[in-house]
Amino acid sequence: MTDGRRTMLALTMGDPAGIGPEITAAAWRALRAGDGPVFVVPGDVALLSAHAPVRAVADMAEAALVFPDALPVLPVDLVRPARPGQPDSANAPAITGSIERAVRLAQAGQIAAMVTNPISKLVLKQAGFPHPGHTEYLAELCGVAGQEVMMLACPELRVVPVTVHVSLRRALDSLTTAEIIRCGRTAAAALRRDFAIASPRLAVAGLNPHAGEGGVMGDEEQTIIGPAIAALQADGFDVTGPWPPDTMFTPPARARYDVALCMYHDQALIPLKTIDMAGGVNVTLGLPIVRTSPDHGTAFDIAGQGVADPSSLLAALRLADDMARNRGAA
Amino acid sequence: MTDGRRTMLALTMGDPAGIGPEITAAAWRALRAGDGPVFVVPGDVALLSAHAPVRAVADMAEAALVFPDALPVLPVDLVRPARPGQPDSANAPAITGSIERAVRLAQAGQIAAMVTNPISKLVLKQAGFPHPGHTEYLAELCGVAGQEVMMLACPELRVVPVTVHVSLRRALDSLTTAEIIRCGRTAAAALRRDFAIASPRLAVAGLNPHAGEGGVMGDEEQTIIGPAIAALQADGFDVTGPWPPDTMFTPPARARYDVALCMYHDQALIPLKTIDMAGGVNVTLGLPIVRTSPDHGTAFDIAGQGVADPSSLLAALRLADDMARNRGAA
Repeated sequence: MTDGRRTMLALTMGDPAGIGPEITAAAWRALRAGDGPVFVVPGDVALLSAHAPVRAVADMAEAALVFPDALPVLPVDLVRPARPGQPDSANAPAITGSIERAVRLAQAGQIAAMVTNPISKLVLKQAGFPHPGHTEYLAELCGVAGQEVMMLACPELRVVPVTVHVSLRRALDSLTTAEIIRCGRTAAAALRRDFAIASPRLAVAGLNPHAGEGGVMGDEEQTIIGPAIAALQADGFDVTGPWPPDTMFTPPARARYDVALCMYHDQALIPLKTIDMAGGVNVTLGLPIVRTSPDHGTAFDIAGQGVADPSSLLAALRLADDMARNRGAA
Repeated sequence: MTDGRRTMLALTMGDPAGIGPEITAAAWRALRAGDGPVFVVPGDVALLSAHAPVRAVADMAEAALVFPDALPVLPVDLVRPARPGQPDSANAPAITGSIERAVRLAQAGQIAAMVTNPISKLVLKQAGFPHPGHTEYLAELCGVAGQEVMMLACPELRVVPVTVHVSLRRALDSLTTAEIIRCGRTAAAALRRDFAIASPRLAVAGLNPHAGEGGVMGDEEQTIIGPAIAALQADGFDVTGPWPPDTMFTPPARARYDVALCMYHDQALIPLKTIDMAGGVNVTLGLPIVRTSPDHGTAFDIAGQGVADPSSLLAALRLADDMARNRGAA
């Protein structure tokens, strides 16, 4: 699974018309030497050859040997050559094929963790892809649909949005005590297993300004969030809240917890991206395998120009390595 | 109005059981020398004497002369002595009296601007105070009820929440095109007059994750926010948006606008407090007078312990000075 002490990961191709190929090459250049993780890309050999020296490989042993000299690729062929910035639904099978290949390698224990390059929901949807997004597709491939939990992490902050890619109104309508409890339990288990935090501290955000200020500005803190906190505490977890959302992301506040459970997408993502716009990593919890991804999209608008920043992808590769080692999978 | 080149401000007493008295004394010590603003406190002489040398004064000329040596106070007597951390509704008349005195001084042109120490809505409400908060009370005293707009400012960011102290659900229900336009116009006018920005750049936030992603996650960007942006642009203002909320507060994004119009309290306050937890200043726009305040509450829990941080109050005093000078009122 590893090349001596180096962890073997799979990095998916992502949308071939986005910035995936160039940041993949940049990540390979950053990691080829040293003792960081190594990776194999299930993807199109010609596509990646435009950005780095590439070697088609047949297995992980070969990939590990090749990595210091060339980007190892497990061939998954595109139907049509990719043009940067011009996504093509005809290539959807290769995009999803790359993801499925990485999942199967992880399930077979041939890689320690998988990292995904950005995909476009729209491109895949046009080709009949039935899943709301990457994460749900991975959960289904792993046989754990509905158990996935999204976490965003940077060195200064970890956040878990309990509701995610829905309108703010729908987030309010769909927020439940049960969902907060599920996300809290999954986050706590992951922090123990994958982040080596023996007694994770969970901070639960309120929903309303000032966390409702005793019911004056909304009562979800009493009716929905409070009971979830009580249930998680009854489980034995170290849980506090509901905290006023605006003051819980300051440096001294952040020092008091290991993860913030947030009630909606932007309550989690605004502080994370404001603190660390380039280094955030998306982590899917609740899967049997380790999966991380950069915290940005396909960036079709700048693809192929050589200006894409590989920081978030590199952070995702390094975090996947750390998580796999903590889990004992590396 | 000024002592030579120094601007004369009024600083209200705030709740006498909160941290107001001690941060007022700390601000006086920081400003007594130098060429920054000077201020007079409409407040209780005995209360303030516990924290700094105090001189009861009768007018602004005397206050200016006294300031380098003692904190000048315009006597507004408490009914009962204040005990730190133990608010007392019996003192509500002095708390509101201090505010009214400062407003009248500003209206008469005897001070260039007013700064308010924190008050407790609960304490005043128990005494029959009919206003939702400080800001609304000031608007009514100035005869412009309903025209007030709240802005929060720190050196790196200015934000205007279009909906403020209501539940998140109520914020969704009450968000209107007209209110966004009103806030945008008031913010643009204030940036020109009080912040010396000739062509203010307004960035309008979306409401939903990814600003709705073309209607997939909510349509308020099309139905409510877009029309407001179009109307403000038709007014001739430099307005952009609706922006995805999570990426609009990063350093490069912030460099592209002078104020962010935000759709709800925490969309504005989370980034501001995450960036600058101690130095944020609350500015009330839409009043005929300049009014700022520190961006924190009474902090009854730490009052009287000598640990309160005067940074935000000092920033509020300095910003009031700047605004008054830009306006030509100093």
